[in-house]
Amino acid sequence: MLEELKELKELKELLQEKKFANLKEYLEKVNSADIPSFFEDMNIEETIIMYRLLSKEKAAEVFTELDPEVKERLIGALTDKELKEVMDELYMDDTVDLIEEMPSNVIKRILKNIDKEDRKLINELLNYPEDSAGSIMTTEFVDLKENMTIEECFKKIKKEGMDKETIYTCYVLSLTRKIVGVVGLKDLLLADKNKKVSEIMYTNVITIGTYEDQEDVAKKFDKYNKYALPVVDNETRLVGIITIDDAIDVMQEEAEEDFEKMAAVIPSEESYFKTSVFTHTKNRIIWLLVLMISSAITGTVITKYENAFAAIPLLVSFIPMIMGTGGNCGSQSSTLVIRGLAVEEIKLKDWLKVLWKEVRVALVVGVLLFVVNSAKVYLEYRDLKLCITLGVTLVSTIIVSKSIGSLLPIIAKKLKQDPAIMAAPLITTVVDLCSIMLYFNIATIIMGI
Amino acid sequence: MLEELKELKELKELLQEKKFANLKEYLEKVNSADIPSFFEDMNIEETIIMYRLLSKEKAAEVFTELDPEVKERLIGALTDKELKEVMDELYMDDTVDLIEEMPSNVIKRILKNIDKEDRKLINELLNYPEDSAGSIMTTEFVDLKENMTIEECFKKIKKEGMDKETIYTCYVLSLTRKIVGVVGLKDLLLADKNKKVSEIMYTNVITIGTYEDQEDVAKKFDKYNKYALPVVDNETRLVGIITIDDAIDVMQEEAEEDFEKMAAVIPSEESYFKTSVFTHTKNRIIWLLVLMISSAITGTVITKYENAFAAIPLLVSFIPMIMGTGGNCGSQSSTLVIRGLAVEEIKLKDWLKVLWKEVRVALVVGVLLFVVNSAKVYLEYRDLKLCITLGVTLVSTIIVSKSIGSLLPIIAKKLKQDPAIMAAPLITTVVDLCSIMLYFNIATIIMGI
Repeated sequence: MLEELKELKELKELLQEKKFANLKEYLEKVNSADIPSFFEDMNIEETIIMYRLLSKEKAAEVFTELDPEVKERLIGALTDKELKEVMDELYMDDTVDLIEEMPSNVIKRILKNIDKEDRKLINELLNYPEDSAGSIMTTEFVDLKENMTIEECFKKIKKEGMDKETIYTCYVLSLTRKIVGVVGLKDLLLADKNKKVSEIMYTNVITIGTYEDQEDVAKKFDKYNKYALPVVDNETRLVGIITIDDAIDVMQEEAEEDFEKMAAVIPSEESYFKTSVFTHTKNRIIWLLVLMISSAITGTVITKYENAFAAIPLLVSFIPMIMGTGGNCGSQSSTLVIRGLAVEEIKLKDWLKVLWKEVRVALVVGVLLFVVNSAKVYLEYRDLKLCITLGVTLVSTIIVSKSIGSLLPIIAKKLKQDPAIMAAPLITTVVDLCSIMLYFNIATIIMGI
Repeated sequence: MLEELKELKELKELLQEKKFANLKEYLEKVNSADIPSFFEDMNIEETIIMYRLLSKEKAAEVFTELDPEVKERLIGALTDKELKEVMDELYMDDTVDLIEEMPSNVIKRILKNIDKEDRKLINELLNYPEDSAGSIMTTEFVDLKENMTIEECFKKIKKEGMDKETIYTCYVLSLTRKIVGVVGLKDLLLADKNKKVSEIMYTNVITIGTYEDQEDVAKKFDKYNKYALPVVDNETRLVGIITIDDAIDVMQEEAEEDFEKMAAVIPSEESYFKTSVFTHTKNRIIWLLVLMISSAITGTVITKYENAFAAIPLLVSFIPMIMGTGGNCGSQSSTLVIRGLAVEEIKLKDWLKVLWKEVRVALVVGVLLFVVNSAKVYLEYRDLKLCITLGVTLVSTIIVSKSIGSLLPIIAKKLKQDPAIMAAPLITTVVDLCSIMLYFNIATIIMGI
């Protein structure tokens, strides 16, 4: 952090003193991924000067890493010739991402500065549904023909390789462009130059369909440990590839979404600060409303037991403890089950196994909390009946809440809903209602109200 | 899924009919990552027959993917010669992982079947602290000398390449083994054979220290989009590399841990079913105890207001709604801030910016919930004072809980604690106390109790 600040100060000094040659040299040494953070604290004039000092290749690398606003301002400041240079260097999937996040007037200028052929491809890519494999793939890959020799393969790779996002995995196609094999650059390198590529390729190719969901794509990367996977159409013709860095982005996006769902926030792709107060409100209000109204049901149930707490007002003071413990137990179980379902360790047919595990855990947890709570309450109030009431309530609440917490996500999945909908807040609200009913019923019986 | 079942049935048939040649052919066609799932439903005799039919390379690939128990049983069934073959094929980091998860008698047999030289390396790797870069790196990489020509480089790569986990990034070392540059196989391929590697290498190398935390390693992969990064000791001598697939495992492990922390579960690396009831209890009980005892404080506070709800028992029935809404608002804010801190979008110095955003969101959310709740309560009870009491409580609870929810994670980070400790359950408990005090104080004033 401190080092970065020092670097930024040096940069600004060079800029103010107009030592552009030194600055250029300096920028060439810095990694592309570190440059966007320098731009954050600069005005647009400084940014554009700095940007023009970057080499062509580096300029494109830096460009993809910038925030959308900075991109937009930069495009506004670049000449058509400069913009065309940037666009030529960008990978196809990055261009598509750019177009998706820019306003329409900027898109027009971008499209004007892209080759006709590329424009056609981009339009095709833009037509795939959001979150489909087609929408995240790139069309830059090395395709070899099955009758090529290794030597011919290398010629093709060397000729085209510079432009391709990854050349380390090459795809072997039949004459009708159907994918018939895959070969790593490593294997090509170690093979006899005169062999046919079809002799050394792997024919057991893992492919992705263009309309496959990006979450399934990420799972395939995780399972098969590949750096790139080919995307094929209905007739197994190769149409694109997805590289591992895009798969990582998807994994992180999905984890981020799950975190937000767990906190009763509607997932959004925007970052915290860039989301407006209005959008933040919109993402949070629905669940708050739903949960407020459903907790009112618990309130209504409480009014039914007015007699109980009119007789023994002390009972009210244990409501937070009972509800809190029930809610926490339920959300522990639901989170573990939701994660287990997500990583496919828990399957639908395992519901009884899960329930059996949770009930046993609940029993042990319940007894432990019972002991601690009874000791505390007895020392404070010397009331054995109260201790028993609270203890029985605790144990039964914990068993009920762990059962509900573990089963509801499985039921949601069975009904083809996202199990994450059963995350902590909703489970807590459901469990609250059960705990209150258990509590007052048990109290009524044991304390004889 | 259905397809997998069909495949499994076919496999078992071939096995029972002892058609080993067909079975061998069949297994050769299946991807290594798909084979472990077949083993799940087989007994150890069937497993060992199947395993022996795999090619040497495939056997090693399948082996790393197996569950620890299956690995252990398989090692028990293999002859020393077979075990040595598997060990020879395994990458160094996979061997280390294996040793870390096996019981000591199995480790002894494994070490006996590893070359002396490798054994020394493994011991070094085992000495790095858990979760450090050293503990996840592999020692198999291609190192070039800076005075080599491209042609000499290719000779070395072809000679050694077969054994290396990745040959797509090569590291260029000085005579003292200090890292001076990095070069992609792609650049080597496209360069003039007679050039020196030092002319085409990148000198701006991103490195990882051996003792760097694995979480920081994962962040570097995410930031710099590399397939492999070099690990260096204090004197920048190359000691190992980390490949992107290991970085992905770290990212997923860390996300998993955060999910568990959010649900008040102490993170464990074991999967759901493999964790015993005892361990499940151990991982969950501490937080439950802490939260139970702290919610008892809220209970004690409630007893102070016995007069209020003795006068108006209806007040009790709104406790779940007030506490629930406060808790949900607080956990929304804390989750978003914890994630923002984790991805480094939110920095410590931004606390005022975060607070200002949360307060504005709280105001809008508060007013909306106020309106809905007032309408509902007025229609039900026709009591204006009650509506105002609840409304004022709601708005102030929401503001307080969103402020607490957003600031506590930042404070935790400032105190060098994990911000995730301030996840939903703890925030909820803190917020509960505040909401109850606000509620009864506001009620006392407005309703004139």
